[in-house]
Amino acid sequence: MTAQQTMRFMSDNTASACPEMLEALAAANHGLEVAYGDDPWTQRLDAALGAFFGAPVRAFALATGTAANALALATLTPPYGAIFAHHEAHIACDECGAPAFYSGGAQLMLLEGAHAKLSAETLAAALDGHPVSVHTVQPAAVSVSQATELGTAYRPQELTELCKVAHAHGLKVHMDGARFANALTFLDCHPADVTWRAGVDVLSFGATKNGAFAAEAVVFFDTNLVRDFELRRKRAGHLLSKSRFVSAQLLAYLENDLWRRNATRANGFAQRIGAAAGARLIAPVEANEVFVRLGAEGKRTLRTAGFEFYDWGAERSGLARLVTAWNQETTHVEALCSALEALPKL
Amino acid sequence: MTAQQTMRFMSDNTASACPEMLEALAAANHGLEVAYGDDPWTQRLDAALGAFFGAPVRAFALATGTAANALALATLTPPYGAIFAHHEAHIACDECGAPAFYSGGAQLMLLEGAHAKLSAETLAAALDGHPVSVHTVQPAAVSVSQATELGTAYRPQELTELCKVAHAHGLKVHMDGARFANALTFLDCHPADVTWRAGVDVLSFGATKNGAFAAEAVVFFDTNLVRDFELRRKRAGHLLSKSRFVSAQLLAYLENDLWRRNATRANGFAQRIGAAAGARLIAPVEANEVFVRLGAEGKRTLRTAGFEFYDWGAERSGLARLVTAWNQETTHVEALCSALEALPKL
Amino acid sequence: MTAQQTMRFMSDNTASACPEMLEALAAANHGLEVAYGDDPWTQRLDAALGAFFGAPVRAFALATGTAANALALATLTPPYGAIFAHHEAHIACDECGAPAFYSGGAQLMLLEGAHAKLSAETLAAALDGHPVSVHTVQPAAVSVSQATELGTAYRPQELTELCKVAHAHGLKVHMDGARFANALTFLDCHPADVTWRAGVDVLSFGATKNGAFAAEAVVFFDTNLVRDFELRRKRAGHLLSKSRFVSAQLLAYLENDLWRRNATRANGFAQRIGAAAGARLIAPVEANEVFVRLGAEGKRTLRTAGFEFYDWGAERSGLARLVTAWNQETTHVEALCSALEALPKL
Amino acid sequence: MTAQQTMRFMSDNTASACPEMLEALAAANHGLEVAYGDDPWTQRLDAALGAFFGAPVRAFALATGTAANALALATLTPPYGAIFAHHEAHIACDECGAPAFYSGGAQLMLLEGAHAKLSAETLAAALDGHPVSVHTVQPAAVSVSQATELGTAYRPQELTELCKVAHAHGLKVHMDGARFANALTFLDCHPADVTWRAGVDVLSFGATKNGAFAAEAVVFFDTNLVRDFELRRKRAGHLLSKSRFVSAQLLAYLENDLWRRNATRANGFAQRIGAAAGARLIAPVEANEVFVRLGAEGKRTLRTAGFEFYDWGAERSGLARLVTAWNQETTHVEALCSALEALPKL
Repeated sequence: MTAQQTMRFMSDNTASACPEMLEALAAANHGLEVAYGDDPWTQRLDAALGAFFGAPVRAFALATGTAANALALATLTPPYGAIFAHHEAHIACDECGAPAFYSGGAQLMLLEGAHAKLSAETLAAALDGHPVSVHTVQPAAVSVSQATELGTAYRPQELTELCKVAHAHGLKVHMDGARFANALTFLDCHPADVTWRAGVDVLSFGATKNGAFAAEAVVFFDTNLVRDFELRRKRAGHLLSKSRFVSAQLLAYLENDLWRRNATRANGFAQRIGAAAGARLIAPVEANEVFVRLGAEGKRTLRTAGFEFYDWGAERSGLARLVTAWNQETTHVEALCSALEALPKL
Repeated sequence: MTAQQTMRFMSDNTASACPEMLEALAAANHGLEVAYGDDPWTQRLDAALGAFFGAPVRAFALATGTAANALALATLTPPYGAIFAHHEAHIACDECGAPAFYSGGAQLMLLEGAHAKLSAETLAAALDGHPVSVHTVQPAAVSVSQATELGTAYRPQELTELCKVAHAHGLKVHMDGARFANALTFLDCHPADVTWRAGVDVLSFGATKNGAFAAEAVVFFDTNLVRDFELRRKRAGHLLSKSRFVSAQLLAYLENDLWRRNATRANGFAQRIGAAAGARLIAPVEANEVFVRLGAEGKRTLRTAGFEFYDWGAERSGLARLVTAWNQETTHVEALCSALEALPKL
Repeated sequence: MTAQQTMRFMSDNTASACPEMLEALAAANHGLEVAYGDDPWTQRLDAALGAFFGAPVRAFALATGTAANALALATLTPPYGAIFAHHEAHIACDECGAPAFYSGGAQLMLLEGAHAKLSAETLAAALDGHPVSVHTVQPAAVSVSQATELGTAYRPQELTELCKVAHAHGLKVHMDGARFANALTFLDCHPADVTWRAGVDVLSFGATKNGAFAAEAVVFFDTNLVRDFELRRKRAGHLLSKSRFVSAQLLAYLENDLWRRNATRANGFAQRIGAAAGARLIAPVEANEVFVRLGAEGKRTLRTAGFEFYDWGAERSGLARLVTAWNQETTHVEALCSALEALPKL
Repeated sequence: MTAQQTMRFMSDNTASACPEMLEALAAANHGLEVAYGDDPWTQRLDAALGAFFGAPVRAFALATGTAANALALATLTPPYGAIFAHHEAHIACDECGAPAFYSGGAQLMLLEGAHAKLSAETLAAALDGHPVSVHTVQPAAVSVSQATELGTAYRPQELTELCKVAHAHGLKVHMDGARFANALTFLDCHPADVTWRAGVDVLSFGATKNGAFAAEAVVFFDTNLVRDFELRRKRAGHLLSKSRFVSAQLLAYLENDLWRRNATRANGFAQRIGAAAGARLIAPVEANEVFVRLGAEGKRTLRTAGFEFYDWGAERSGLARLVTAWNQETTHVEALCSALEALPKL
């Protein structure tokens, strides 16, 4: 057994940064610039993201997606608020309770939905069933993930309907876009179509998983809550003194469609793996993640062959998550495809 | 229409206090006593509740059940902890997020279970499916209600099995005993059998719903967390300066089996109503609450006749909750029974 | 040594409730009333307190002063807010950090001031010296105590000037009125003169220390924040189910000037003790507290004679606080006066 | 007037990263590495910092100093705790209340002290004067800054005495080492002498201000609280997925004394400016900050000449802070010295 046999499909955050990102850092790395976001790079963020989304926005650079999600949600909900989300959402399962910490105790109201999506009907039913009184947490926000935790992408129409229900009940809409570029590349629509035009109020716009060192932006389409956000960010230690280096990554990400080139690569790998997985797929492959039914035996076979990946759900479920990154080696992808095809038919 | 036609079955907290409670207040109401719990009444609480439960305890007087539950849970869970409970639990649905506020953001993990009970199997499955990592909230406590939100009572064996699972996973067990006396009266067992002997670590011991003005106790069978509790209570404004008046109510409640006399009355009313409801019952009547399927028409009929009660769940469900208190008028109970019997057969 | 030799001057919260309070409870103690504040007693609170203050108000019954203060402040300040107060304020020294807990972490900015009062000049200087940026907590509220921690009373003009500075800087004004009746009785002015007419936005209106069992009200002169307050109160477990019993105390307190009769008694005792203390006084006696320089020897003498009281500040300071309650025994007051007069001249 | 005339002495966080840092990033930027700290760079942190300090440590990489301070303090204090610090401490004045947010509401107890240092005597007096009861926040931690907010450095003996007082009262000691390298370089002692050997329990070890892009470490000399810390960090969104890039900076910082070379440069600039300032100095120059009395006229003169710097304290105080970074241009430093010397004699 040799070292090159370790082939990692654990997560796109295992990837290194793409060369353009390193160049962006190097280019920004000179002289003395005003700190805490008053530098020329950060000052360009609103315009750059506004141009990308085709709407006026206020955008804030951050180093992590958990911070982006939790800070965004904390601006949308009071401490006694309720946040509706899919029960598999990252904010519910993988952030150690960050939304409750940041909001001062808001309660997650977790809902079901096929392919890890919330439907307008499900949200409407949940809101109708939520008592209106001083005794209950107060519905304040809904959070959706684009792409979802199962690697699927909301269509513009789905989001529009969901946001309509949310707004009709006085809720704000947050989107966790840790893999926004992957979803957008798959959908091949304008960024506006799955954000503000559909009704999204605030977006966690992720770049880290798609080629950055550490760069996320919280993008407000509803800009009224920005002052509150800025104070919460500072108070949480998420206002970087040398903000220019995060902002420079975000600017590089938007320029020359870097986001799309990286996502196209990662998505393409996932499509190939998905085709090889065939009947084992438990969800359509729409971004850069492949969810497959392997069974204990199938998992063992792949792991013995050097493939690293996470179980999906409880270990005994026999499900696995395979994630592709922009810098996945093609030979590893091909090896994985072959290995999947070599498994016994289901 | 005359005034006596309003017949209230909304909740046992609509009741006045029983005469013995007023006498207890009057008896304690003289002279200058050291404040904040260093008075003779409060000093007797540990011994009185210890004798009641047949075990050494530390007990703390409070004015509300929500405070008792949330303060108890905050001593059992870190801010990044998870609290497992039934999805219909009072702490999940009726306390405006108090556990998250008091604990600094602990997350509720809501489970299913027949008759509003958590089973050992359900808890075990939930814990087995909860990933162990820094990314998830950390399982810290389970909270059960005795009687439950559907007016049912856990049997000693059920609790013993549930607590065994909890302790095996390092969780502490909290019991919301807002209607503890009603459950205990129904079960006719020793208080120890459904608390410390079964594995309960901390109990919210309610008296308000069963004849007090405003008196609850948090009873620690595991006394190690008491210092933390005392500071949290003060910090929350729940340490009453004139504590003697709450303690005097609790002492009166325990003396001469006042708790049992009041609960026997309330439970008896519920049994009569339950018998009249017959096939309309959606849960066995084991305490002082009756849950019935009335339908829109049945509800209208009863309300027109002057009966006040809450819908159970969404209004369109057609379900209703009927609660009896120690001071329910017998004629009202009889009228309700007749009205239920007069409804068309289901 | 005999029992009557213990003569308590520790605090007015060692007192029992006055007979009118017990009568009020008894009078409210019948039948089934809607819980959580929708009862006739609680429904009258706004009108009764509005009549007392001569202005429209929204008022909320609570069981403790710490809860009243912390909940009121939490409605006035964001988590990243700053609350300006005297460094001896109850909220800073005696509430175990309740304002930070309730507000989600607001920072106290503690100022100096003679006789435990904040002056307009001191507040203005503090606000002028507070940097305006995202890096600092944001000035949100000022809290004053009436009577103060040294038993002195703000004059209407002092409050008017202080509130003017606060409002000019965008701060709201909270008043901790745990001994409001004592201050008002001394000042002999209209309640409006030291509250809304002077610029106070929210008042913690205490009755517990002046004859109630446990009854405080948060009185909003600026009624915009009421919805937020109600949710915070419920979430904190301070919405009593049988609210009528707290409200009934507050109504009794306002009717027939009960507040003034009790305060007049307590203040009168303090005046007599103050006169006996003479040169030992460290602050003018304006309410029901007397602060005296006794020295270690003087304290020992008094305590040996059976008088109970608290040290004021560090034990070695030689200072003591003597508090009188409505039900102080006249013979004890006379004995204390004699004992003070018998101490060696300073 | 030309562009090069802007000469920035605002803060060392206006500096770019030094070339070694960029090289370290580039060197770590390849392949797929396990995320969230299980990469080879992060795995080496404990050993590298342990070697630096000459003691076993647990160390955690972070992106900001505010996060380092607040997370460290949150592990040392309960929500009802008190943190003692100098009234000019960064945690008190410049972090928007982060310690209260992270700890769930701990209260800062702010003390006086010459040259922004806390003395053992001052701390002892504050602790002796703090009442021990359930009514007050509970003394939990003391936080000192090394270098201080006035650019001075605690001597080993001063720290040893301070820590002794703290530990004798059950407090833990936190050190804010945002400019630790600058202090250490000035003191020219072993890192242990001003940390664990003197009694410091946890250190915020900063590299950002001294040449990194964004790299701080929380270093635990008392390793018991580490599990709690890790969960709090994740929950706050401060666990970077691609942790290797922060860790690589920290490793580079320690290797080949990079920390010392950068600090020596910055400190040297400050010494020259301090010598030029002469009698205008308000504190000895011991790190890379110079605090001077300029007066309104002196400030205007310098600013007109192109020098950028912050007022110190209120604008009208006439005080200014001049900070030097590793990459300060020598010509700018010389120009500043000349400008200071050209000011009228005080």
